[in-house]
Amino acid sequence: MEAPRVISEHQVIYCDTDCGGVVSNIAYLRFVEAARVKLGEALGFSLETQAERGEWITVVRTEIDYKRGAKLGQQLQVSATVGEVDRVRFWAEFEIRHGDNLIANARQQLAIVKLPEGKPLRVPDKWKES
Amino acid sequence: MEAPRVISEHQVIYCDTDCGGVVSNIAYLRFVEAARVKLGEALGFSLETQAERGEWITVVRTEIDYKRGAKLGQQLQVSATVGEVDRVRFWAEFEIRHGDNLIANARQQLAIVKLPEGKPLRVPDKWKES
Amino acid sequence: MEAPRVISEHQVIYCDTDCGGVVSNIAYLRFVEAARVKLGEALGFSLETQAERGEWITVVRTEIDYKRGAKLGQQLQVSATVGEVDRVRFWAEFEIRHGDNLIANARQQLAIVKLPEGKPLRVPDKWKES
Amino acid sequence: MEAPRVISEHQVIYCDTDCGGVVSNIAYLRFVEAARVKLGEALGFSLETQAERGEWITVVRTEIDYKRGAKLGQQLQVSATVGEVDRVRFWAEFEIRHGDNLIANARQQLAIVKLPEGKPLRVPDKWKES
Repeated sequence: MEAPRVISEHQVIYCDTDCGGVVSNIAYLRFVEAARVKLGEALGFSLETQAERGEWITVVRTEIDYKRGAKLGQQLQVSATVGEVDRVRFWAEFEIRHGDNLIANARQQLAIVKLPEGKPLRVPDKWKES
Repeated sequence: MEAPRVISEHQVIYCDTDCGGVVSNIAYLRFVEAARVKLGEALGFSLETQAERGEWITVVRTEIDYKRGAKLGQQLQVSATVGEVDRVRFWAEFEIRHGDNLIANARQQLAIVKLPEGKPLRVPDKWKES
Repeated sequence: MEAPRVISEHQVIYCDTDCGGVVSNIAYLRFVEAARVKLGEALGFSLETQAERGEWITVVRTEIDYKRGAKLGQQLQVSATVGEVDRVRFWAEFEIRHGDNLIANARQQLAIVKLPEGKPLRVPDKWKES
Repeated sequence: MEAPRVISEHQVIYCDTDCGGVVSNIAYLRFVEAARVKLGEALGFSLETQAERGEWITVVRTEIDYKRGAKLGQQLQVSATVGEVDRVRFWAEFEIRHGDNLIANARQQLAIVKLPEGKPLRVPDKWKES
């Protein structure tokens, strides 16, 4: 399988920013979440499918590097793809850009958890080939 | 019953503010929610009790008037009390202050809903006397 | 001038919801803010223009009625238009829908404030005719 | 200097949780921010001091590991201390606990930035000894 790469767009509005005049370090993780949802769709794990099967993509770890502050009104592009894949965990990798400017890099280690048991499921083999 | 009045404190941190330099109009509603939770406790509806009984205080309507912008680092006091009480709805009334300065007034119309049925319960009679 | 009506779309993601299983009463105000920004653009007050002129559309009051809880994954439409217009204040009116279902109604009283003076400006006459 | 260790308390309210029934992975970073503000105070960089001097503690990188989901109504303790210190960057380390249970570990790489120039300042030598 070729690695899916999705892009999610977000225009910066007031509540994304803080009094430093740029986007709050926390708000970027909402943009990352929107991109992760789109990535899940591309991998066959739409929110609807997750709910039907009771199999949820769950965040185990987040890393984010802030490179440059995004400003009110800017249209940001958040790209997401699959990185390293282990037996029961995998990484999603994110880039937040404003045009040519890199705003932030992030990656999240994810597990697929069967609820309500809380059992981690095996990550599909084909994601490894990406 | 004398009307309970509770006070919840909140120090303004970065993520509460926006690029206008003051607290975001949306963030105040998180401070109001913290005060509502304390008011629920004073009325015998702590979060634990709500969860045990499956009886949840639910927001039906919010009104908020912004009087003055609160700033980074300020220690805010949010007071909450019970206002008008109907058969299946009641109002909670809030004041957000920084010392003597009124920052915002809010009120929320609330219902007590039995889940999972979604049935609205009668508001306790004694709250009316407050 | 015919009243502009804009529509802003938002797919509900995890951070929009709370443990009640539906969208948090507070999160709807982020969706309203995104629609207000689009309405500002339609009125000639894009975020860029506001920043250039130092003339900011500012929220004075918010009212919101919650009709039905929106759920994870749903695609919501938030429409916004201009309501009543006074000399230095005007109302924006919002409807949040999921298809045919009304999720919430909101309205916000707004002022146009010249910064840093903090002086409220006259609302453009032509908005009144809408 | 002995390393300061501060503790910030937070009761989990509705808007901190998501429809997974536990605290949203994003909300923990608001609790971390409140603890970081207290840590700054202990280091002589209160929000007031930062504003007066125009010297701001700025987040360069965040890492957070989610160990166990915190639930509605729980009283969380967020402890913060200084970790590794370089010439112009230092790490703050955080633990979020509910009683004996570790909820999440986080650390943030921080810089002290002189605004409006955007110049990174030297981290005080004495912090190194901690």
